[in-house]
Amino acid sequence: MTTITEDNLKGCSPRDIRAHYRTDEYIGDSWGLAPAYLQTAVAMVPTENALDFFTFCQRNSAACPVLEVLDRGSPVVRKLAEADVATDLGRYRVFREGECVEEPPNVRHLWSEDLVTFLIGCTGSFEPYLMQRGIDLPYVRANRTAPVYKTNRPANSAGVFSGPQAVSMRQISPELITKTVQICSRFPAFHGAPIYFGNPVDLGINDLRVPYAGDPPDLDPTKVPVFWACSVTPQLAALASKIPFMMTNAPGFMFIGDVLTDDMSATA
Amino acid sequence: MTTITEDNLKGCSPRDIRAHYRTDEYIGDSWGLAPAYLQTAVAMVPTENALDFFTFCQRNSAACPVLEVLDRGSPVVRKLAEADVATDLGRYRVFREGECVEEPPNVRHLWSEDLVTFLIGCTGSFEPYLMQRGIDLPYVRANRTAPVYKTNRPANSAGVFSGPQAVSMRQISPELITKTVQICSRFPAFHGAPIYFGNPVDLGINDLRVPYAGDPPDLDPTKVPVFWACSVTPQLAALASKIPFMMTNAPGFMFIGDVLTDDMSATA
Repeated sequence: MTTITEDNLKGCSPRDIRAHYRTDEYIGDSWGLAPAYLQTAVAMVPTENALDFFTFCQRNSAACPVLEVLDRGSPVVRKLAEADVATDLGRYRVFREGECVEEPPNVRHLWSEDLVTFLIGCTGSFEPYLMQRGIDLPYVRANRTAPVYKTNRPANSAGVFSGPQAVSMRQISPELITKTVQICSRFPAFHGAPIYFGNPVDLGINDLRVPYAGDPPDLDPTKVPVFWACSVTPQLAALASKIPFMMTNAPGFMFIGDVLTDDMSATA
Repeated sequence: MTTITEDNLKGCSPRDIRAHYRTDEYIGDSWGLAPAYLQTAVAMVPTENALDFFTFCQRNSAACPVLEVLDRGSPVVRKLAEADVATDLGRYRVFREGECVEEPPNVRHLWSEDLVTFLIGCTGSFEPYLMQRGIDLPYVRANRTAPVYKTNRPANSAGVFSGPQAVSMRQISPELITKTVQICSRFPAFHGAPIYFGNPVDLGINDLRVPYAGDPPDLDPTKVPVFWACSVTPQLAALASKIPFMMTNAPGFMFIGDVLTDDMSATA
């Protein structure tokens, strides 16, 4: 089997990258690949829980914007790409009763006619978009990920799914906050505009240096902590519900679509 | 029982109007009432069909933007208002096997624990919003409704739900089309920006004077026909599917929420 490196994939199309993931020739994460294109989180949920999960996402649409729902039992992506969601990501997580029991490179062996798959907007393709427009994110340049925190605010529950709102945080220069809000407002498909600015104590976050997920940030006193709704929110709720079975992408291993990030803009 | 006229309701709050509908003291339609506030279509679907219906709406989100999903079996609206969706509209339609069998003023007697209710964005509150901003819509001033057409374009199907895309049409002065697009782009919750301009033959519409629903338009050669995705789309699909039972609002009898139309803007 050929070994493909991240450098081999620079400039590759989303279709080519998915093909390398499908054959397991490439096993690295998706950050920085095909930077002009949409990346999404993926959740595969049994039919019995799918309506509740979908409703949870709708009730927390800033955190979990549903961009595509696949046919029941089908792994075929149609709108955002022509792809097979059971094979075309780099790594998955398999949960049983709320516990991660496996992190396989594909989920062909676990596929069933009972699964409903949701593709959910994430910031994977949004950070390069911001950087290209002059919003510097030093952690991206350092191949690190934005920190994610649990807040003291409950998400809107639906059926068996409930839990805290999660937020991601990026430090933005005061003079670039307006531009950041304006750009992000155009993209409800990627969590939209920030939801909170400044002192994190009101959100129940006591120490920004200790995130729940992602990399601890280097705090920069010249910048303002800016918080976005985060797609960890539905994952926390799904895990807390301890539904018997579900699968997701592994963190950092997103689905790469054929749609340009810019084409997901809600407005001109 | 007091008889309430439309004039009595001028200036009333959405809460007061809903109370008059709830007691069946007012039986007129909702056009022009509480013009600053959100109005939505309503669909009540058996649990067995709810995931497919929700997916159909997601796949045709310009036509059927889902603004709230109620808990399974519950008629209680929580986000867009505090209200009871089984009583707080003026008139309903009850469908069995795709046929309208009843148009009752409330659906208490038909409620069941099996129903999932969807509140779907519509233009009921959007037309006053446009008019307040200088986009004249003469048919609104004449208490008529926009014409709706079936097109030759299929909607994206989901499970048992499939059918043609429906569009609504409004005639706009050429010099106001940009402003119309800009305003509408801010409101994906109300079908967003127009999807087609000009000659309707490409949409399979041979005669604008013969709509599928709504009032026939007075054609004005100085204006351009402008077409929007339309929430008749999911109704056509739901009826064509001949699911055993579902209920909707009657045309023109929308749910009136407590949210200002302006607050539904996706962007600043």
